[in-house]
Amino acid sequence: MNNPILALDFGGTKLSVAVINGVPTNERPRRLEVRRAFTPDGADATYELAATLRLARELLAGRAPAAVGVSFGGPVDYPRGLVRLSHHVRGWQGVPLRDVLVREFGCPAVVDNDANVAALGEHRFGAGRGVDDLMYVTVSTGVGGGWVLGGRPWRGHDGMAGEIGHTVVDPAGPLCLCGKRGCVERLASGPYMAADYEEERGRRGEGEKGRRRMTGKDMAEAAVAGDETAREILLRGAWALGVGLGNAANLINPQRFVLGGGVTKSGELWWKEVRRAARETALPEVLFDVVP
Amino acid sequence: MNNPILALDFGGTKLSVAVINGVPTNERPRRLEVRRAFTPDGADATYELAATLRLARELLAGRAPAAVGVSFGGPVDYPRGLVRLSHHVRGWQGVPLRDVLVREFGCPAVVDNDANVAALGEHRFGAGRGVDDLMYVTVSTGVGGGWVLGGRPWRGHDGMAGEIGHTVVDPAGPLCLCGKRGCVERLASGPYMAADYEEERGRRGEGEKGRRRMTGKDMAEAAVAGDETAREILLRGAWALGVGLGNAANLINPQRFVLGGGVTKSGELWWKEVRRAARETALPEVLFDVVP
Repeated sequence: MNNPILALDFGGTKLSVAVINGVPTNERPRRLEVRRAFTPDGADATYELAATLRLARELLAGRAPAAVGVSFGGPVDYPRGLVRLSHHVRGWQGVPLRDVLVREFGCPAVVDNDANVAALGEHRFGAGRGVDDLMYVTVSTGVGGGWVLGGRPWRGHDGMAGEIGHTVVDPAGPLCLCGKRGCVERLASGPYMAADYEEERGRRGEGEKGRRRMTGKDMAEAAVAGDETAREILLRGAWALGVGLGNAANLINPQRFVLGGGVTKSGELWWKEVRRAARETALPEVLFDVVP
Repeated sequence: MNNPILALDFGGTKLSVAVINGVPTNERPRRLEVRRAFTPDGADATYELAATLRLARELLAGRAPAAVGVSFGGPVDYPRGLVRLSHHVRGWQGVPLRDVLVREFGCPAVVDNDANVAALGEHRFGAGRGVDDLMYVTVSTGVGGGWVLGGRPWRGHDGMAGEIGHTVVDPAGPLCLCGKRGCVERLASGPYMAADYEEERGRRGEGEKGRRRMTGKDMAEAAVAGDETAREILLRGAWALGVGLGNAANLINPQRFVLGGGVTKSGELWWKEVRRAARETALPEVLFDVVP
C-alpha cells in the first residue's frame, strides 16, 4: 500500500490538511506536507468542506489516498461517520462527512471528534505511549477531552464522552454559556480567564481604555510577571481543572492525563496548581500522573 | 458441570454465602440457599474468613463447588485476587483471598469489589439487561460505584474506578472523612445525612434528648412526613448525587445509571431531585436514564 494517507482537521477557526506517506507505525509517521487555512467569519459547513477538499486535492497532486482520517472540532456520530454539530461553524448538523469523503476519494474514511483523535495520537505517538488507560484534555478556547481505555478509544454510548469542560466543580461559581455555574471550562479556558481578568481589572480601576481585547495568553503572561489579579484568576482556573481531573481519576482510574492546548503553556505556576488540586481531589489509592 | 457455584459476599457488617445450582445463564440463576451472619464489633479479617468458610461448608454439605465468586466490600486487586483493604474491618490489607479459596475448594475463584459485582449483576440479571454501558451506584452507608463499559466491567488501571462518592461537587461544602469538602458521599450518604439532621435539629432546639441515634432512614421518613429540616438535607443529598451523576455522564456517556442501597428507598422526592440535578448537570446532548 504505497498510496498516501490523507488527514483532515476541521477546527473552530482553522482547517488543516496533511498527506502522510505509507502506513504509519509506532514510529512517528513522516508528514510529507501540511496545508492550513483560516476559516473567515461567517463561513459555513459548505465553505469549510469545499476549502478543505481544495487543499487536499492540491496536496495529493493526482495521487489517490489509501484512506482518509478526519479530526472534527465538535461532536461526531463515530459509527455512522456523521457530524452532529460544530459549536463554532453553522451548517454542520448531520453532515454525512464520512460518506462524502468515501465518494470523493474512493477509499475508506473515518471521522472522529478532535479530542478522541488527540487522545489516540498521544497514545500511539506522544506522551501516552505505553499507557493503555489515559485521558487527553485540551485546555484552550474550550476545555474538552478524549479517553483511551484498555488501549482503545472510549467514545461513550453516543460518542459524547470526554466532556470534562462541562463537569461542575463549583456550584457557586460564575455562569457558563452552557447555563450551569462553575463548569471547568468556565473557570479554566483561555477566553473566560481573559474576560474575568479584564472585568476584575475594570472593577479595580486598573483597566486600560482602548486597549485591544485581552487573550488568555496575555493574562497568563501578566500572572507570570507578577500581576496579582492575573495570578488569582490563573490559579483559580488551574484549581478548577485539577478538581475536574481528580474527579475523573476517582471515577475512571486512568494511569495518565495528557494536557494540551494554549493554556497549558502558562508556566510552572499553572502546572503545579493543576497537579496539586488533582492529587488532593483523588483518593490516596487513586494513582495517576499529569503530563504535557 | 453439575457442581454448584459458591458466592461469597463480604460486607462491612454482614457476611453472606449462597450456593447456586448449575451454570447461571441470562435467566436469573436459581439461588438454592443463602446464609447470612453479622460481623460482631471488633471482628477482623481472620474472623470473617473463618465464619464465611464455615457457612459455606454448611451450605455445600459435602459437595465440591465448580467455582467461587466473591463480592468484597472494599478495594480489590482483581487480576491478582488480592484484597487491598476494608474500610470497616481490620486485617484485610493484602489478603490473597483468591488463592485461599482456590486452595480451600480446589476450583477456580474470582474476587472483585462489591460495586463492580453489583454493576455486572445489574447488567446480566437486573435493571441493566440489554444495556452495555452503565454505572451502578450504591447510596447507602457510603456512596460507591462500578462500571460496565462495552458490556464488560471497567475496573480502572489499578481497580480503583467507580469512586463517585469521593468526587467533589461543592468545594464550600462540609468536611468529609477523606479530608476534602463537599464530596458526594459527605452530602448524600445515609449516616452523614442523619448526622447533619441531628446537628441541625440541635441547633434549632428541635432535638430530643436521650433519643437513640438517628439513621438515614429516620431522616428520610421525617422528610417525607413533612419535616422541613429533614427535607432540606435529603434534597441537598439528592442534588449532590445528581451533580455527581451528571459529571460522570459528561465524562463517560453511559446509557444508564442504576442506583441501589438504602437511601434510594427515600421516595419520589429524592428520585426527582437526583434526576433533575443529573439532567441539568449533563450537556443536553448527553443522554442517559437513572433507574432503581
